[in-house]
Amino acid sequence: MSTGTTRGVHYLDDFAVGQTYGSGRLKIETDRIKSFAAEFDPQPFHLDEEAARQTMFGGLAASGWHTCCLFMRMIADGFVNNSASMGAPGVDEVKWLMPVRPGDDLKLRATVLDKRASKSRPDMGFVRFKFEMLNASGAVVMILESSLMQGRREVGA
Amino acid sequence: MSTGTTRGVHYLDDFAVGQTYGSGRLKIETDRIKSFAAEFDPQPFHLDEEAARQTMFGGLAASGWHTCCLFMRMIADGFVNNSASMGAPGVDEVKWLMPVRPGDDLKLRATVLDKRASKSRPDMGFVRFKFEMLNASGAVVMILESSLMQGRREVGA
Repeated sequence: MSTGTTRGVHYLDDFAVGQTYGSGRLKIETDRIKSFAAEFDPQPFHLDEEAARQTMFGGLAASGWHTCCLFMRMIADGFVNNSASMGAPGVDEVKWLMPVRPGDDLKLRATVLDKRASKSRPDMGFVRFKFEMLNASGAVVMILESSLMQGRREVGA
Repeated sequence: MSTGTTRGVHYLDDFAVGQTYGSGRLKIETDRIKSFAAEFDPQPFHLDEEAARQTMFGGLAASGWHTCCLFMRMIADGFVNNSASMGAPGVDEVKWLMPVRPGDDLKLRATVLDKRASKSRPDMGFVRFKFEMLNASGAVVMILESSLMQGRREVGA
């Protein structure tokens, strides 16, 4: 994910409401869909094509948690590891809108919804994002909203 | 996770507001914390003890998404795969309250907050749960709220 025109490490001060970021693509493979499900989400529609055809998914679909994990990888590579990230207190909302299928080429769009300084800690603040995961057809398969904690460029400035 | 005194497959009709369920324990190991993070959440405090000591975590901590995935495994084993589960449209909220540490013995407590029939589909409905993940000391490390779709015992009854 490119963080626009700003270079170097990103701080709270560098994020602006309304800003959008795009990411590169990340392909989800059949074998990993199944092995992820075997470890974390062993439901028939995530494990086996034949069993999945008999369900409401009509075919193999990735666990929604697998999509969340790929989302995390995309933002880590994209900007979290190039920012003054201090983690996240949680997730405001996740919507799984469409099945993610074997071979889907996923990509992320991030929009800054809100930004605020912490009341109790002058060295940090919160950037609230809307993240949309898109498949190769451009359909939004998942929406996730979350506030990320970010350090400030100048403490107490 | 035991589904109380009711035996056999669980349907929408079998869940009652206020009901609580407990789970067995699931241990999170150091190596899996690191390998999970290497694939999905490569931040220093999830990857390496030494690097983690320099961060706000003060030591290695599991990715919050790893905890979410273990939560999914616990509910799949506990009742989802023994119910008329039709998946979930998403997650209402996740709060990561405390770091999950190597060797933590996790356990889940589920409470039914709400239950309603679907307006558009007589064969199903939604059960809204509050899930609390506890560590061996009994501290709540994560709270997750989510509505699970469940089939009805008798369609249109």
